[in-house]
Amino acid sequence: MATNTSWTRRHIISLADFSAIEYDIVLQTANSFREVLSRKVKKVPALQGQVVANLFFEPSTRTRSSFELAAKRLSADTLNFAASTSSLTKGETILDTAKTYLAMGTNLMVIRHRDAGVPGAIATEMDRLDARVGVLNAGDGQHEHPSQALLDLFTICLLLDPDRPRLDLLADKKIAIVGDILHSRVARSNIWSLTAATGAELHLAGPPTLLPKLFAPMGDGRPGKLFLHWELEPALEGADFVMTLRLQKERMTQHLLPSLREYHNLFGITRDRLQLCQPDVKVLHPGPVNRGVEISSDLMDDPHLSLISQQVTSGVAVRMALLYLMGGGKNA
Amino acid sequence: MATNTSWTRRHIISLADFSAIEYDIVLQTANSFREVLSRKVKKVPALQGQVVANLFFEPSTRTRSSFELAAKRLSADTLNFAASTSSLTKGETILDTAKTYLAMGTNLMVIRHRDAGVPGAIATEMDRLDARVGVLNAGDGQHEHPSQALLDLFTICLLLDPDRPRLDLLADKKIAIVGDILHSRVARSNIWSLTAATGAELHLAGPPTLLPKLFAPMGDGRPGKLFLHWELEPALEGADFVMTLRLQKERMTQHLLPSLREYHNLFGITRDRLQLCQPDVKVLHPGPVNRGVEISSDLMDDPHLSLISQQVTSGVAVRMALLYLMGGGKNA
Amino acid sequence: MATNTSWTRRHIISLADFSAIEYDIVLQTANSFREVLSRKVKKVPALQGQVVANLFFEPSTRTRSSFELAAKRLSADTLNFAASTSSLTKGETILDTAKTYLAMGTNLMVIRHRDAGVPGAIATEMDRLDARVGVLNAGDGQHEHPSQALLDLFTICLLLDPDRPRLDLLADKKIAIVGDILHSRVARSNIWSLTAATGAELHLAGPPTLLPKLFAPMGDGRPGKLFLHWELEPALEGADFVMTLRLQKERMTQHLLPSLREYHNLFGITRDRLQLCQPDVKVLHPGPVNRGVEISSDLMDDPHLSLISQQVTSGVAVRMALLYLMGGGKNA
Repeated sequence: MATNTSWTRRHIISLADFSAIEYDIVLQTANSFREVLSRKVKKVPALQGQVVANLFFEPSTRTRSSFELAAKRLSADTLNFAASTSSLTKGETILDTAKTYLAMGTNLMVIRHRDAGVPGAIATEMDRLDARVGVLNAGDGQHEHPSQALLDLFTICLLLDPDRPRLDLLADKKIAIVGDILHSRVARSNIWSLTAATGAELHLAGPPTLLPKLFAPMGDGRPGKLFLHWELEPALEGADFVMTLRLQKERMTQHLLPSLREYHNLFGITRDRLQLCQPDVKVLHPGPVNRGVEISSDLMDDPHLSLISQQVTSGVAVRMALLYLMGGGKNA
Repeated sequence: MATNTSWTRRHIISLADFSAIEYDIVLQTANSFREVLSRKVKKVPALQGQVVANLFFEPSTRTRSSFELAAKRLSADTLNFAASTSSLTKGETILDTAKTYLAMGTNLMVIRHRDAGVPGAIATEMDRLDARVGVLNAGDGQHEHPSQALLDLFTICLLLDPDRPRLDLLADKKIAIVGDILHSRVARSNIWSLTAATGAELHLAGPPTLLPKLFAPMGDGRPGKLFLHWELEPALEGADFVMTLRLQKERMTQHLLPSLREYHNLFGITRDRLQLCQPDVKVLHPGPVNRGVEISSDLMDDPHLSLISQQVTSGVAVRMALLYLMGGGKNA
Repeated sequence: MATNTSWTRRHIISLADFSAIEYDIVLQTANSFREVLSRKVKKVPALQGQVVANLFFEPSTRTRSSFELAAKRLSADTLNFAASTSSLTKGETILDTAKTYLAMGTNLMVIRHRDAGVPGAIATEMDRLDARVGVLNAGDGQHEHPSQALLDLFTICLLLDPDRPRLDLLADKKIAIVGDILHSRVARSNIWSLTAATGAELHLAGPPTLLPKLFAPMGDGRPGKLFLHWELEPALEGADFVMTLRLQKERMTQHLLPSLREYHNLFGITRDRLQLCQPDVKVLHPGPVNRGVEISSDLMDDPHLSLISQQVTSGVAVRMALLYLMGGGKNA
């Protein structure tokens, strides 16, 4: 694995200002780790002796496991922080918790928090302290979830060219994101990545309560084009990739939706509805899935149509790449 | 450690169809790992780069720690799944959770669930997907707990011949299992293993509410003989080994038992009662123990009579053997 | 790292009987691990193949993470025990839990419990069983927290002589501990360590409800001198180091204090109040901190005055030293 001299970003908080070169470095690096993961011994000593702390102030299993595995496969030592048993219940501030992990010798912090902005605030504080630590946003409120969007991008580009996944493969593609865009940090990060390539078309679809017009300005001045739809059909028509989002059941009690059945009828992705798309359309979902709500159960399980399993596999390679680039940048 | 060319089983879900050869391979392999554990550096690189995921949908500390340590001593990377903080609370199905861990690159899944059949269903699904992953049942409802029964067998055979623990050492032995057989997955797995040797006698004893006659058919056609008793004495008489089972206190509220004291008076194992057994009788218990209920406190602590501590030690060696055989079989 | 032939202590439960030689061995060993932690690869193979079990019957994140990282940097395998998901809820005794971890092959047990005496009782039982295992008290009720006091000592001595931190550097120093002495295991352990050097002066300050006279006898016959004050000023006057303690909010509901504001007015450490001390005074706090209660927020963040971050960093080196000495003593 050659050192990436062009990687200069210490923290990964948002994809809003990611450059095309950065996307391509992530895609290439993830692809070389994908090769590592196909070996019998799936480990490299890249981060040996470094400490990756998973600070999950919001509980999670799958994302935490994915980062933990990525870190272990880079031979890092990992520390897991569980919010429920933590000093937070003793009144310590989040910044003080982060500083404690810094002082213990943490090199990379992977942070999830239910409030938008927390990983960014920690990164800012770390820089103010001149701390040589990288902060990776693993999901902050309804703001962003960059590693998820990067693994989605990697999954898509890998399908288009397994030898050389790169951003410009999106150039003539139409991608739809369907569902609860308003509350989705996954969608927000994907809006940045999937409009980063010239000629790409990203279509958002959802009911007006879950897709307000405020998303339109995110497309201003982007290389790709952004479209909003309050109906499913125009988004699916001719699409190459369809990403459905998890629908959280509390949206019902918040009166944003009449019922799960109604939602499924209007915006659920089914085999039938995919007839509107390109013949070789593929479906993505960030997981965990509510089967029969945002996606029909048989569609989810169809390996010819669903990329859900590949997304999870890509996740480990992409997170290895991110930790490696952040860790390597630090030592450069 | 030579490769076991005769081991072909990918999953370990139940001991119902375990062959004598399989028992002997497990016993021999565990014995060579016992030797490893006596060294100063207690690790072997057998599963380096492989991932063992402990999916404990039902919380556990001792069994999970035992598997985690076994995996680490084989140099595997481990992932722990805690049901309480998991996507399950977000509506994801158990099969989807397992598939997520598969897609991350898990090689071996150690699964505990409060419902019988879950590990088996996951194994079936993994095979249907043609996934090269092994599933080990670490306890499913009241069904089975194979690794516990195998460590019990190893503990017994090791005492009988430390150089060559093997199934046929049970040939002329009488073993009693006492207590809440009905609700015990440990007992169910042990019924299969302890009747696997020709000439072995397995005696079950418990009150009728906890030992219904439905267990009798499990002895049909087995090499060893199975007996049921609603009183303690005939089971203990001349026994070489006595295994007591944990009595869960909720059995009282379910009106299956009058009181803990009554239970102890009728079926509790004490030093006095062991007078009925062979002079060199030994006592086993799968833990955790309710002292003074199923076993008297002084008996539990007597190293001349109790094998409880050896069972825990054997557990790590046996689990190393199982993970090794499943992992090696996969690569063969 | 040379073997310390003079270290004979198997367990670390209390500092009450720590000798000057023992303090100096810990300080020197921690200092050599501090050098290891400044390297790029911060690991040594000292405890390879050994198992360190963190048995935290009382939840904790920072102390557990510090011990876990220390163990991993010594290349030990670690097991974490979470009280909430444990067999304890199934009626198993604490001693039986410890014996289970012993039987699994644990070499070193790091134990925290809300009741004073539990780690000591486990250590006694382990010795009675002639088990070659070391027990380290990571905080037991209001009794002691030796590793915290040792890291405080290391932090102080390191500042006084980074090349050769040693106990006699305290000889002409005045150190103040301020706050809820009564309920603090940290204070109790520090009373022993900070009165261990001839010529040292340790001043305790707090309101009478949180600093009863019963602490005075702890100074009898110690090499250093112990003073008690019910006001802050005489403790601060001319002090070289000021340690503030965490104030637990439940002290209010227990009617031991009128209000947090009142407490801060009387005993909170602020930049102004430090004018009474030596010009180069430094402030310590064991964390987690209630900002604006026991210490003002700006003071806590002032790197010229606060040693809080160094304490956390020292913690890893000191815990590596303790585990190393206990582990090495065991093999000697």
